[in-house]
Amino acid sequence: MSYKTLSKEELIKLEEKFEKQYISFKDKNLKLDMSRGKPGPDQLDLCMGMLDVFNSKSILNSEDGFDCRNYGCLEGIREARELMSGILDSSPDEVIIYGNSSLNIMYDTVSRSYTHGIFGMTPWKDLKEVKFICIVPGYDRHFSILRHFGIGYVNVPMLKDGPDMDMIEKLVAEDESIKGMWCVPKYSNPDGTIYSDKTVKRMAALKPRAKDFRIYWDNAYGVHNLYDDYEELTDILRECSKAGNPDMVYKFASTSKISFTGGGLAAMAASKKNIEEIKKQLFFQTIGHDKMNQLRHTRFFKDIEGIRAHMKKHALILRPKFEMVTATFEKELSGTDTASWTKPRGGYFISLNTMEGCAKEVVAYCKDAGVVLTPAGATFPDGIDPEDSNIRIAPSYPGIDELKAASELLCLCIKLVSVRKLIKNCK
Amino acid sequence: MSYKTLSKEELIKLEEKFEKQYISFKDKNLKLDMSRGKPGPDQLDLCMGMLDVFNSKSILNSEDGFDCRNYGCLEGIREARELMSGILDSSPDEVIIYGNSSLNIMYDTVSRSYTHGIFGMTPWKDLKEVKFICIVPGYDRHFSILRHFGIGYVNVPMLKDGPDMDMIEKLVAEDESIKGMWCVPKYSNPDGTIYSDKTVKRMAALKPRAKDFRIYWDNAYGVHNLYDDYEELTDILRECSKAGNPDMVYKFASTSKISFTGGGLAAMAASKKNIEEIKKQLFFQTIGHDKMNQLRHTRFFKDIEGIRAHMKKHALILRPKFEMVTATFEKELSGTDTASWTKPRGGYFISLNTMEGCAKEVVAYCKDAGVVLTPAGATFPDGIDPEDSNIRIAPSYPGIDELKAASELLCLCIKLVSVRKLIKNCK
Repeated sequence: MSYKTLSKEELIKLEEKFEKQYISFKDKNLKLDMSRGKPGPDQLDLCMGMLDVFNSKSILNSEDGFDCRNYGCLEGIREARELMSGILDSSPDEVIIYGNSSLNIMYDTVSRSYTHGIFGMTPWKDLKEVKFICIVPGYDRHFSILRHFGIGYVNVPMLKDGPDMDMIEKLVAEDESIKGMWCVPKYSNPDGTIYSDKTVKRMAALKPRAKDFRIYWDNAYGVHNLYDDYEELTDILRECSKAGNPDMVYKFASTSKISFTGGGLAAMAASKKNIEEIKKQLFFQTIGHDKMNQLRHTRFFKDIEGIRAHMKKHALILRPKFEMVTATFEKELSGTDTASWTKPRGGYFISLNTMEGCAKEVVAYCKDAGVVLTPAGATFPDGIDPEDSNIRIAPSYPGIDELKAASELLCLCIKLVSVRKLIKNCK
Repeated sequence: MSYKTLSKEELIKLEEKFEKQYISFKDKNLKLDMSRGKPGPDQLDLCMGMLDVFNSKSILNSEDGFDCRNYGCLEGIREARELMSGILDSSPDEVIIYGNSSLNIMYDTVSRSYTHGIFGMTPWKDLKEVKFICIVPGYDRHFSILRHFGIGYVNVPMLKDGPDMDMIEKLVAEDESIKGMWCVPKYSNPDGTIYSDKTVKRMAALKPRAKDFRIYWDNAYGVHNLYDDYEELTDILRECSKAGNPDMVYKFASTSKISFTGGGLAAMAASKKNIEEIKKQLFFQTIGHDKMNQLRHTRFFKDIEGIRAHMKKHALILRPKFEMVTATFEKELSGTDTASWTKPRGGYFISLNTMEGCAKEVVAYCKDAGVVLTPAGATFPDGIDPEDSNIRIAPSYPGIDELKAASELLCLCIKLVSVRKLIKNCK
């Protein structure tokens, strides 16, 4: 029954009921964190075998005979580039391996464009205005890099098969100050959307006015499928090349949610021309990244098939958690007209939309009862969700029982806040 | 016998003799690299036990119970900060652990000052002129960071107990555009000089006109003693604090030449106020560095005493190499007046000065006979040694027999080039 059709009296009755339930939830003294896409300990256990791939008796040479213990190999050892090229859907020659954090690569990539410019074009620091397209809702850490460098933004809404391409085509063609666009193309953060083949092709065929416009393709969840029958993502770099825009995309990925979250491999892929330019700058920054960890990863996973097999084990752990949350939503909220939510088939998040103007209050109510959610608004640049509606749910870390309690609490808070909002509106 | 006192005829005779020797050296088809301060494989073997400190059965929590496999802990786990604080001679609260490369930290530190400024002061990108003091001869990678950011330099000569402090005091007091100074205070690269207590104290008491002036204290060789009776370095941060300049220094160090060169730990130390500012920026850059490697290092070395004991093993390998090179110089060049050289008691380099105008040619002769040295000039900003005299020798990587051959060749090239130069001067 839609709460929106209820009379004031009916709503007040519901409010009383929910308030009682809320108080008894508080008495449970929950202490749960669903705020960040953090693998659970059981997921990290899956990777412990990586610690046995070599020991003090091992030879630590790469396949081409390079001693991984020593200096050198700025772009990463060959087999690590091969491994990551599988995730990045590129050739190893188009790949550079960095340290453990793809966020750090993205930061560096923006920072380099800001201080030195791309292909000899004006460094962004010397331009009056630089803006990015921010697909919303999106990833807070992408947005905060922009804020840090004083880069502006234009929000573009996410649709069912990717961002609103009509808007994007128009924006980049008209506005030379638009220099980039963050994308999480597969199981987008937080919506779990997969960009359709058509969306990717339209993106690759963009005609940006800014010659240094780049698509920042953060394929964070490229192999993070929850189900065996998953949808393939069309490769943007190949499409860009076909469309005559070979240099228009930087791709990023990491093993942070594949191997050890606190000690994985991060990498980027781009056209050879981009990679050459980036390597020239990278020379000033380091002698080389951690090759021991590169070797550890390649000896454990072997190749992309090894990674895919490993990801199936992650899915076995994660799938019940995602399904538990969406089933709870279904059970508690279905038909109430108080919220809608995604049912992602991969990635790390469920995206939930409350009635307009309720998200912040819902998050605050949850917090008061011991469940920490990502702050409402975090999925928008500057933390401002104009509709105060989107909440990002990260179900990976808590155990399944905790998750059940937390989801039930969340549903209750949504109902309580919604009912109160509706009562106010009756006046 | 000083070659400078010989007659033209005597010099021509020597030239003939050296030329014959040079040709027979060429016939040996040497293929050696003394260009970079790279540990030898036997040094890397010393650390293999680090690969046994944990395996798939281990609990990978830090001492305070943090799961090192997961996200978080931006500043590094407590015990890693304790370990590195021993090398950095600071308290753990003044330390941030990064990835594997201290060069990368230094790059980031300059980059941050360039884009965002220090303590709210004008970012360097917005200043007309920014300069660094470069102590020469010095480390090429320090200088190339400046070049990359278009930062100018003023060369200040290295004296016996550190750089020329009279010059430095005057420069920083007068010139507001001087924002920094690179220092390798212990076993300086390439001279092997240790800054005296007096030098450190004068440095700490500088009265720079620029309030965002910082000393970039790259203590790369802080525990890299070749002999048991080593000189202690006075701590700059403590002295700065005493002198009323608590925020004037950033300290850097890594385990690149302690544990695995291609997979060590790098860290920085500074006043708590500096560390707070840096952590705020670091938040935009990463969720956290590789904590697995932090745990690996702390479980292997335990503490600074563990590191000191380990460095004695390195010294056993390195000392004979350094002594072989300087003994060869002594034997072949002593009294010829063609070169002078340092006899470092630690670090990774021997610094050699040829007669003015000979270094480039000597390096070219060596290369033609199969021995690669650091390019002449590399120890000066922009690769320009005004006297074309300094050559940096890195004796760590080759085996002792190869090193003997290479040193003999180098001496021969010095003698041949010097004699030819002197003959030319006779005309």
